[in-house]
Amino acid sequence: MKTAALIMAGGRGERFWPKSRKRFPKQFLTLTNSDRTMIQSTVDRILPMVNPEDIFIATNRDYRELVRKQLPQIPEENILCEPEAKNTAPCIGWGAVAMRKKYGDAMMVVLPSDHIVLQPLLYHSVLRNAIAAAEETDALVTLGIPPSSPNTGYGYIQFDTESLPGGHGAFRVKHFAEKPDLETAKRYLAGGEYLWNSGMFIWKTSAILREMQEYLPENYEELVAIEAAIGTPAEQEILESRFIRMKSISVDYGIMERSKNVYVLPASFGWDDVGSWLAVGRINPTNDMGNVIKGDVVTVNSTRCIVQGDRKTIAMVGLEDIIIVDTPDALLVCSKESAGDIKRVVEILRAVNRTELL
Amino acid sequence: MKTAALIMAGGRGERFWPKSRKRFPKQFLTLTNSDRTMIQSTVDRILPMVNPEDIFIATNRDYRELVRKQLPQIPEENILCEPEAKNTAPCIGWGAVAMRKKYGDAMMVVLPSDHIVLQPLLYHSVLRNAIAAAEETDALVTLGIPPSSPNTGYGYIQFDTESLPGGHGAFRVKHFAEKPDLETAKRYLAGGEYLWNSGMFIWKTSAILREMQEYLPENYEELVAIEAAIGTPAEQEILESRFIRMKSISVDYGIMERSKNVYVLPASFGWDDVGSWLAVGRINPTNDMGNVIKGDVVTVNSTRCIVQGDRKTIAMVGLEDIIIVDTPDALLVCSKESAGDIKRVVEILRAVNRTELL
Repeated sequence: MKTAALIMAGGRGERFWPKSRKRFPKQFLTLTNSDRTMIQSTVDRILPMVNPEDIFIATNRDYRELVRKQLPQIPEENILCEPEAKNTAPCIGWGAVAMRKKYGDAMMVVLPSDHIVLQPLLYHSVLRNAIAAAEETDALVTLGIPPSSPNTGYGYIQFDTESLPGGHGAFRVKHFAEKPDLETAKRYLAGGEYLWNSGMFIWKTSAILREMQEYLPENYEELVAIEAAIGTPAEQEILESRFIRMKSISVDYGIMERSKNVYVLPASFGWDDVGSWLAVGRINPTNDMGNVIKGDVVTVNSTRCIVQGDRKTIAMVGLEDIIIVDTPDALLVCSKESAGDIKRVVEILRAVNRTELL
Repeated sequence: MKTAALIMAGGRGERFWPKSRKRFPKQFLTLTNSDRTMIQSTVDRILPMVNPEDIFIATNRDYRELVRKQLPQIPEENILCEPEAKNTAPCIGWGAVAMRKKYGDAMMVVLPSDHIVLQPLLYHSVLRNAIAAAEETDALVTLGIPPSSPNTGYGYIQFDTESLPGGHGAFRVKHFAEKPDLETAKRYLAGGEYLWNSGMFIWKTSAILREMQEYLPENYEELVAIEAAIGTPAEQEILESRFIRMKSISVDYGIMERSKNVYVLPASFGWDDVGSWLAVGRINPTNDMGNVIKGDVVTVNSTRCIVQGDRKTIAMVGLEDIIIVDTPDALLVCSKESAGDIKRVVEILRAVNRTELL
């Protein structure tokens, strides 16, 4: 069966300010030592398994030009610009009907555009297993990352330890859990039956659309209308009117948590969701002094720092655990332990109408 | 008797990098909330007591244009550009003979160009006393700051507690001490007979030149030749050849420590030598969060920081005791406790030939 991919690239993250901006979010940034952006790396990574003409990008109008510029190999008609942000279920539903219209039934791989994978060969191997499992069983398959810490920044997936691994090593899912508090996360980690929710899904378009019809029937009705209009003169008009009527809900909560046919494949391939500047420190190599540095930087007695320079020379003297991000119009200096408060800078700038900096 | 001032402005400090540069040292910077530079403030401060045409500026050729631009009221011929840096004794000697040539004997006030004074009225009062004492006694008078901490960054002056204060409250000096180590500084502070050396001197030109003749006779010989050439066609040539022959020595060590006729006037007028970025934190008002900020700065959970912004917005998140100085081509981020290591950045830049940043 044909394999197609939907890459979700509508996010407007604020945690990478000042590099990420409303008009230039994280997925379009280069945050690793590579010269490829997050979304380019996502496409590069899946290309050994999916042809470029079978890759769909779900985003919004503000980012259409960024997608075209960064991913010239993706056909124009595969760029799905949502009229309104509606969380992941409507986005995935639209991708699924677009694929059904084009291919009939197909294997659909859903991928975030802003995660990193350090071992692409393992990633391909896991994806092949997941595709085989989903194709053989009609199940909804997701990838779960064995947790290495009680991280409170991820959702968790509880799997049924009693369930024999199905084909290809997948376990039946018992529960999708939201981001936990630290105590709960520690319990999840200690119990050994929770995985991090990677946000990657593998299923047949027929399987996900059947589940949408069952659990989100109103949304499904709009999706059928959108599908019928694809390729007709009314396509854009129908999309605009129908898409915004859909219920805004995540696929985790709207489908995965309710469906009876959900499996999770434990997967390790050097995954990181690059949720904050701290991740840039984790995923990039450190220099002799223990700093992760990009740009023209002079260091004196400084360690465990993360620096993203821009055009000017940066001198660091006597710093520990400090994040420095320079851009042409804004500079961030932040202690690592306060990385979660960077969004407060964005809130302040918004409150005082400094829109040029958002 | 005529009162004239010599302002010493030849320093090439590196402790205010990246704002201070080889071609733009500290005395030409604005480091307070005022819009006047250090040297402009020094001139403003003495103007109620000395006419502009009686103010001499000792500097070097690299800074002649800066002096002209920042101090247009000072006559061109009063800008003394030393052919070579020779420490303070030759510099002061040249100023003294220039004044002797112009005025005959005169009261000479020697001032650093890069210190601040928070209470100018007290400063004027102290200077008037010092001038009166020096005029009446022929003594070399210096101003000593009663120490408020065991500061190891200043030289100290030990005064003779037995000596009755002479006219106008001056004490006879026992000893000029170099910058002490911390233990010594604590002892100085506890003993109550040490003052900080402010580097400000008041004397008759005849008095200082008489002492120079006695204690630095070779230098004095060159000074007499320089004086004789002032206003002649050979002036510049004689200056060049004679000045560089002088022994490089400080007036403290070359004259003050040896002379038998030295007095110190204890003086409090909110003095600070602005020796590092830490001083900018001391002498400028702090905001509600305890930060000293210049420029467009957004603060989240940050305190006791010193920020000198430039053109771009700076966001500080979760910082304590951090110094941030932005300039068009270089950015410094430094912990307060490492402010003394900023010169190491300059050393590194010099070692790798980044002259554009020096």
